[in-house]
Amino acid sequence: MQSTPTQQRVSAYLNQLQERICAKVVALDGTDFKEDSWDRPGGGGGRSRVLTEGRIFERAGVGFSAVFGPQLPPSITSQMPGAKDQEFFATGVSLVFHPRSPHVPTVHMNYRYFETAGNDEQGPTWWFGGGADLTPYYPVREDVIHFHQTLKNACDLHDLAYYPRFKQWCDEYFYLKHRNEPRGVGGIFFDYQTGDFEALFAFVQSCGDSFLEGYPAIVERRHEMPWTEQERDFQLYRRGRYVEFNLVFDRGTTFGLQTNGRTESILMSLPPLVRWVYNWQPEPGSKEAELYEIYLKPTDWLA
Amino acid sequence: MQSTPTQQRVSAYLNQLQERICAKVVALDGTDFKEDSWDRPGGGGGRSRVLTEGRIFERAGVGFSAVFGPQLPPSITSQMPGAKDQEFFATGVSLVFHPRSPHVPTVHMNYRYFETAGNDEQGPTWWFGGGADLTPYYPVREDVIHFHQTLKNACDLHDLAYYPRFKQWCDEYFYLKHRNEPRGVGGIFFDYQTGDFEALFAFVQSCGDSFLEGYPAIVERRHEMPWTEQERDFQLYRRGRYVEFNLVFDRGTTFGLQTNGRTESILMSLPPLVRWVYNWQPEPGSKEAELYEIYLKPTDWLA
Repeated sequence: MQSTPTQQRVSAYLNQLQERICAKVVALDGTDFKEDSWDRPGGGGGRSRVLTEGRIFERAGVGFSAVFGPQLPPSITSQMPGAKDQEFFATGVSLVFHPRSPHVPTVHMNYRYFETAGNDEQGPTWWFGGGADLTPYYPVREDVIHFHQTLKNACDLHDLAYYPRFKQWCDEYFYLKHRNEPRGVGGIFFDYQTGDFEALFAFVQSCGDSFLEGYPAIVERRHEMPWTEQERDFQLYRRGRYVEFNLVFDRGTTFGLQTNGRTESILMSLPPLVRWVYNWQPEPGSKEAELYEIYLKPTDWLA
Repeated sequence: MQSTPTQQRVSAYLNQLQERICAKVVALDGTDFKEDSWDRPGGGGGRSRVLTEGRIFERAGVGFSAVFGPQLPPSITSQMPGAKDQEFFATGVSLVFHPRSPHVPTVHMNYRYFETAGNDEQGPTWWFGGGADLTPYYPVREDVIHFHQTLKNACDLHDLAYYPRFKQWCDEYFYLKHRNEPRGVGGIFFDYQTGDFEALFAFVQSCGDSFLEGYPAIVERRHEMPWTEQERDFQLYRRGRYVEFNLVFDRGTTFGLQTNGRTESILMSLPPLVRWVYNWQPEPGSKEAELYEIYLKPTDWLA
């Protein structure tokens, strides 16, 4: 597949976004990322950056990839049957940060762009997808509001309908059906966005840029708060939900594993240390119960 | 759905098998199981027994269930399309033991029986499935041989073709495609076995009974060996593969989550504490490398 100008422009932006976010994290944490560049046997490749055992982050992974191949994988064609047997190009940046402190939320962000060779029956021949969501352990309301507000600001620059629509999509997507629980306090999520390329590319750039306004401020506010062993245990326990979501439901993980992606890069979103406790329930009235009762409910945080 | 005599006989056997195995574990470990009985809103229920923070076992879970409903879940009908919209009955016993010591292997065993209401197009209206497999961290060849030999002895009582066929099926089923790795050193696995009910029920009983001959002897041999922190870390790291297999590939887990089973009972197979390390590789010539090079390869252990 020949590389097109749109492919080059989007992958250049996402590549730079990886650089800018990593630079910000290094400034916060004082620890450097290790970098692995890799080639995909089927076509394309990527660059994974992982920070391990930092001062603030127990693990922070930021992946960039630009891959292509002769046919879209089942994770896409199951949702878009007309696009079967299509040549495709996909580029994306994806990150998950697992902080050491239970007072600092885990965060995920991913923006991606697809092109297919196209035929008469299928739907769009290109689309954007992505989003960002926050998963706190001991949430603070002003942090949740700040995270959502930066995403709303980015959306509102382009279309006032975007934030409410993509916020709801996020609540629906990052949901653990077998637990009847959202993954965290949400953010935005969208997929299969096509139409005016320039307008959508500008929107995705606003979203990507806004990450630097949103999450780092929360880290700065919370990372020096002391924590107890019990709070740490709760964080390790809740990280289990992150693993369950990513391995059972997440579209990016499924896409990666189905396209014979680089397993270590796909699974670098998993937390470094995780605890499962059989049939654990929070004590009524505790901070842990508050997470479930107040924060793990779809809520209009900016109301 | 009316309970049939075959349903009653099989679930009585599996229920007793849960009792016998738990009694053996209590005798080994000195710690009692906690028991939860539960009802499934859609029909039926079960009894989960979990031993936590024992002397030998960090977690040991043994579940029994007998459930029914108006239609088989997609995890079955995807493999047996004729059986769609069938009333079904399913009973099973399932266990996973996670020992504290990296010198004691993790073990899994599951035997199950299905009945459907039946129609002209579908395949069998009843079938057995199940198996047992061993996942060592620092394997000892005689333990692997002992485990396989007890399973072969059980198989050989019924059909000399069973052990080689079901051993290969196990190697194929407990395989992490995204890692190009088997889960452990295998055992036996079979599904959709139908035909002569009495012969197959007797075979499943031999298999179930053989568990008591196989795994406990390995525990007795190894649980008092001292271990290092590095060996413990390797165990926690390898437990990550168990999580990946169970959440991404395992048919029992998928069946449970799709039938709105009791999540805590389905996921009690997950290890209590797990570590993921980005891009970890064993040192050449180490005991850890030996696991990958010698034991994580489909091998005829009884040759």
